[in-house]
Amino acid sequence: MRPYNFGAGPAMLPESILLEAQAELLNWQGMGRSVMEIGHRTPEFMALMAQAKADLRALLAIPDNYQILFLGGAARTQFGMIPMNMLANGQQAGHLVSGVWSAMAFEEAVKLKKAYCVASSESVQFHDIPHQSAYQLQDNTTYLYYTPNETVNGTYYSYCPLVEGIPLVADMTSCLLSEPIDVSNYALIFAGAQKNISIAGLTIVIIRSDLLDNSAMQPIPCMFDYQFQAMHDSLYATLPVFNCYLALKMFEWIKAQGGVEALYRINQEKASRLYDYIDSSSAYHCDVVKPARSLMNVCFSLHNTALEPVFLAEAARHKLLALNGHKLVGGLRASLYNAMPLSGVEALIAFMSAFADDHGL
Amino acid sequence: MRPYNFGAGPAMLPESILLEAQAELLNWQGMGRSVMEIGHRTPEFMALMAQAKADLRALLAIPDNYQILFLGGAARTQFGMIPMNMLANGQQAGHLVSGVWSAMAFEEAVKLKKAYCVASSESVQFHDIPHQSAYQLQDNTTYLYYTPNETVNGTYYSYCPLVEGIPLVADMTSCLLSEPIDVSNYALIFAGAQKNISIAGLTIVIIRSDLLDNSAMQPIPCMFDYQFQAMHDSLYATLPVFNCYLALKMFEWIKAQGGVEALYRINQEKASRLYDYIDSSSAYHCDVVKPARSLMNVCFSLHNTALEPVFLAEAARHKLLALNGHKLVGGLRASLYNAMPLSGVEALIAFMSAFADDHGL
Repeated sequence: MRPYNFGAGPAMLPESILLEAQAELLNWQGMGRSVMEIGHRTPEFMALMAQAKADLRALLAIPDNYQILFLGGAARTQFGMIPMNMLANGQQAGHLVSGVWSAMAFEEAVKLKKAYCVASSESVQFHDIPHQSAYQLQDNTTYLYYTPNETVNGTYYSYCPLVEGIPLVADMTSCLLSEPIDVSNYALIFAGAQKNISIAGLTIVIIRSDLLDNSAMQPIPCMFDYQFQAMHDSLYATLPVFNCYLALKMFEWIKAQGGVEALYRINQEKASRLYDYIDSSSAYHCDVVKPARSLMNVCFSLHNTALEPVFLAEAARHKLLALNGHKLVGGLRASLYNAMPLSGVEALIAFMSAFADDHGL
Repeated sequence: MRPYNFGAGPAMLPESILLEAQAELLNWQGMGRSVMEIGHRTPEFMALMAQAKADLRALLAIPDNYQILFLGGAARTQFGMIPMNMLANGQQAGHLVSGVWSAMAFEEAVKLKKAYCVASSESVQFHDIPHQSAYQLQDNTTYLYYTPNETVNGTYYSYCPLVEGIPLVADMTSCLLSEPIDVSNYALIFAGAQKNISIAGLTIVIIRSDLLDNSAMQPIPCMFDYQFQAMHDSLYATLPVFNCYLALKMFEWIKAQGGVEALYRINQEKASRLYDYIDSSSAYHCDVVKPARSLMNVCFSLHNTALEPVFLAEAARHKLLALNGHKLVGGLRASLYNAMPLSGVEALIAFMSAFADDHGL
């Protein structure tokens, strides 16, 4: 059996996808070439992209007035592209700050254009998300930006922070496809691929078509221009072909699991089992308030933090990998993306329980 | 035997690399995880990157005062990043225009900052490169930009267009590692990975350290900021991990072939055999003037162009793939990157000869 990989990303992939990719790595679709060796304008790759977009549209019920862009590079590239494309002179962005990622996106927007903080949960060490009652919205807010799931801090918005009349922008890198969403609530959604979609090097942007017009902005490099990329159906420059190929496999896998709703039920079950165990244990604790706990990234600690290196080493011997917290916050973290089966969580809880017993915790 | 893939990129990879990647796709270095499933800050990946950089530095004899950046995204991203990072207000770039790619880079520089054309070979349909005697340099030229090898037009600079006192910038996407170069002639070299380095989705930038200072520029998004990326040793955001892994394999493969000098000798042999055959044939012709012919991309045509679809179909039946010219120029093209063995060129010439005979050409 393969080990369970609890890494926050690049994250584990379903084994069936790895086996398929392995089997066809030297000869894809009988072409006599690897999918890594084909041009992005070949009919075979164009068909792959059309299917991937159709699958994603179906999986998330993306309305027709939204465009789907497949872009090369890391999700963090969007921290710059969003203000470049969406903020003209005199406009400003409102940002919700709920953890490390939303704080970095805010910092980048301030550096490039004009942005302000609508609300932050920094004063509670990001153990909660900003509450709607605390929002301080300013006039002339062109869009509201937030990060529904924070991987480093293990927090999650249990509500959609929709404000009437203000387009909503969401960094869904760590939660897209893990739960049903109403895309029509959003102006723009983006997600790096290396959690629930594919491997690192691809970012997906879902943008409402009427927001593509960026003619009022300063000149934008072609590769960073949403309108230009949409006009070229994401095929202007060479896409990361292999990443797109794996994304299609992942979309097909999600369909075979019963779709996003079915995975959401499993994701809820996985997270609640682990949080319930942590809350019931005298050895472990989770600092995040219950309504704001992430389904994808369960951040926790041992009360006896000195034992955490021992915990990590013993877990690895039990084939439970990458359970360390992010270096900025320390502690422990179990990431439970779509590809993590319930059996992985069961194995983790059994190990945690035995570890606590063994160490008299 | 695998077919020979003459595609211009994403291009063929050495079969030995594909077989290694296939064998270890589910379990890399005994980690119990795929290399596609590991974080970019794991010790294993950091060691991989250190080795990849050291190998590249050794292969090209890159001096110590140059930084090597591994960046996500397509090479075309650099068309924007170079002016963003290198042109302050009042400065201008001089561009040499020798084909499709250098024309697009020039267009992007004009759109974003100030740039002018130093010389162009458009008037001869890009069948030649600009000659140094035709350069029209203006004062206050911050850098000179050129594209040593043009994949669409099949041209190549047989000289380095170094101008005393002007930093030289080169798009080596289609020729890096195919021949020895004197890096110290250049201020900045960049190359998309999908020809001689790895698969699509990674771009390598080699930049002289004293040119990293971009404090005089308008604010640059972190991901597009050379100085920032250098400061973070390319590890600020998640790199395309799998692409970097394949790049290291390619660097090791090049070392095993005897290094860049050895491959250059083979590349010269491959190209001269094919050009010699074309020049001696009554069926085929090459429009590019002899001193400007590309070693990497041999563009040619049948005198009877109506037969080209038949040529492509019959070639594919003989396991000679992707011989079509770029859609902008049509015709035929054989790309002969490092991974193409001499036997592939021999098979192609044998086929071309038989095709000419069969069709009475």
